Amino acid sequence: MTRSDPASNRVNERDILALAVAANGFLPKNILIPPGDDMALIQLTSSQVLVAVDQVVAGRHFTANTPLDLVARKAVARNVSDVAAMAGIAVATLASVTLPQSLGAQGASELLESVRKYAAEFGCPLIGGDTSVHHDPAGPLTLSVTILASPRANGIVVTRHGAKIGDRLIVSGPLGGSFAEDGLGHHLTFTPRVAEAQKLADKLGQNLHAMIDISDGLGLDTARIIEASTKHSGVAMQARLSGADIPCNRGHLLRHALSDGEDHELLAAIDALAEVPAGWTAIGLILQPQAEDARSVLVEIADALEDASNLGWLH
Amino acid sequence: MTRSDPASNRVNERDILALAVAANGFLPKNILIPPGDDMALIQLTSSQVLVAVDQVVAGRHFTANTPLDLVARKAVARNVSDVAAMAGIAVATLASVTLPQSLGAQGASELLESVRKYAAEFGCPLIGGDTSVHHDPAGPLTLSVTILASPRANGIVVTRHGAKIGDRLIVSGPLGGSFAEDGLGHHLTFTPRVAEAQKLADKLGQNLHAMIDISDGLGLDTARIIEASTKHSGVAMQARLSGADIPCNRGHLLRHALSDGEDHELLAAIDALAEVPAGWTAIGLILQPQAEDARSVLVEIADALEDASNLGWLH
Repeated sequence: MTRSDPASNRVNERDILALAVAANGFLPKNILIPPGDDMALIQLTSSQVLVAVDQVVAGRHFTANTPLDLVARKAVARNVSDVAAMAGIAVATLASVTLPQSLGAQGASELLESVRKYAAEFGCPLIGGDTSVHHDPAGPLTLSVTILASPRANGIVVTRHGAKIGDRLIVSGPLGGSFAEDGLGHHLTFTPRVAEAQKLADKLGQNLHAMIDISDGLGLDTARIIEASTKHSGVAMQARLSGADIPCNRGHLLRHALSDGEDHELLAAIDALAEVPAGWTAIGLILQPQAEDARSVLVEIADALEDASNLGWLH
Repeated sequence: MTRSDPASNRVNERDILALAVAANGFLPKNILIPPGDDMALIQLTSSQVLVAVDQVVAGRHFTANTPLDLVARKAVARNVSDVAAMAGIAVATLASVTLPQSLGAQGASELLESVRKYAAEFGCPLIGGDTSVHHDPAGPLTLSVTILASPRANGIVVTRHGAKIGDRLIVSGPLGGSFAEDGLGHHLTFTPRVAEAQKLADKLGQNLHAMIDISDGLGLDTARIIEASTKHSGVAMQARLSGADIPCNRGHLLRHALSDGEDHELLAAIDALAEVPAGWTAIGLILQPQAEDARSVLVEIADALEDASNLGWLH
């Protein structure tokens, strides 16, 4: 345990986090009790708060050759992408870090400084957290980020479960190949689609029915909208994607666009009568499935229909 | 990475968390968007929210022989103890878990079910989270809990930084020996002092100046109140503890009470004129230090004064 273990003195956990947080240089006015107390106190714009937590783990979410700065960026950005998917406004972040012994105090400082930097850049300052050093010499880096956000000023929050039969499915950008061969690539450097989400919500209002960020693969994440909306409405739904319309990143096949994941583009279901806004691509429709067809997502490829419900990371 | 690694299929991360969360059996009315979307949406009682994150790591915060149920309990309870220290009302929790491969799907389910159970028991239902399985076969269990809380109905939040010269220091219970020889003990089974904190705040009102939960050791945590209050007020302060008055757990010496940590009792600074409430023990005073005496905490033991500012886990 910490008391008897000299390794624990290699990194003074609280001091490092305190320094990283202090380096914000100023305390945003809405942070009423600053980092350093038992909890932070935040003044929100309303009495509703959005919250999520997402982690990155060495060997699982990034390879050993990934610069610490990009590890920190990914951990923050994937949380900001969740905020975008709800059409929320990011407010603040907290970081919980388990440091490998090999990182040392210098590496730990660099990592937390990068978390602070990207959190500030994405508009959700780092206001607290917890750091520990692994007791196990082989213990890998784990960085978990909690994000708080506010609903849009009009109080509307966009969920996964609001899609309706007849809705058009649209995506905010090209998909596939997020992980490069060397472990680097788009999954480390993507820009969360916060501005695009706000513009979409401004433009479509109540015609924006459902939204999700594409983290596990277009097939699987489309299925999540279908399943949540079916469950919420009690009306069976099925997505019909048009393979030819799905935008693929250069050099990547449709199969990659459907299943690679970690694109962090947005997928939205919008009313049948709404216009597809500039910058977005229509890729399919939501239909009433034929009797006893339990497949959530079909994709039309060269006149054949394939089941895409399970295309993605987790299956 | 996950896609190409069969080990990742051993635990279907989202499903396990979803099941654990669903086992709450009901959705509290203030959870407007349930777990399963990109973020949870919570209806608060006001537009201010308290937030903190705290983790437990295998080998660091618990030993290998600790039952999973108590690992989960500790992770939740230490966060609830932070809420108590601010005199807050716990609202909800999220869990971020990195699972060892050896735990398997069954162990992972048990762990998350225990997190759910204790979170519900402490009044802050589990409403979201993230789970991953370590890629590294030796990767140890890491469980990070985020807690959200509301300020008391009167809006008063008790910080570390409100102590004044003349204040009396009081503790909510006996200290020392939280870690038993076998790694088990009080640090796994303590009851966070939420009710005691609320009663104290009800009774003392503005005479309750500062509060902290004793997590790192009485010496170090007293120093935190002194340092935060000195910084906030610009007035130099020093705590003078009376060794004879510090309540020690049975079989443990004063030295343990001062430095063991993980007691999770509360330490409060109350106005000199306020009565010490039943259940609390007065253990010292806050004084103006002599010129050039930078020590934050002195403890009087057998007519001698010792520096206790650094007695605790981290130094």
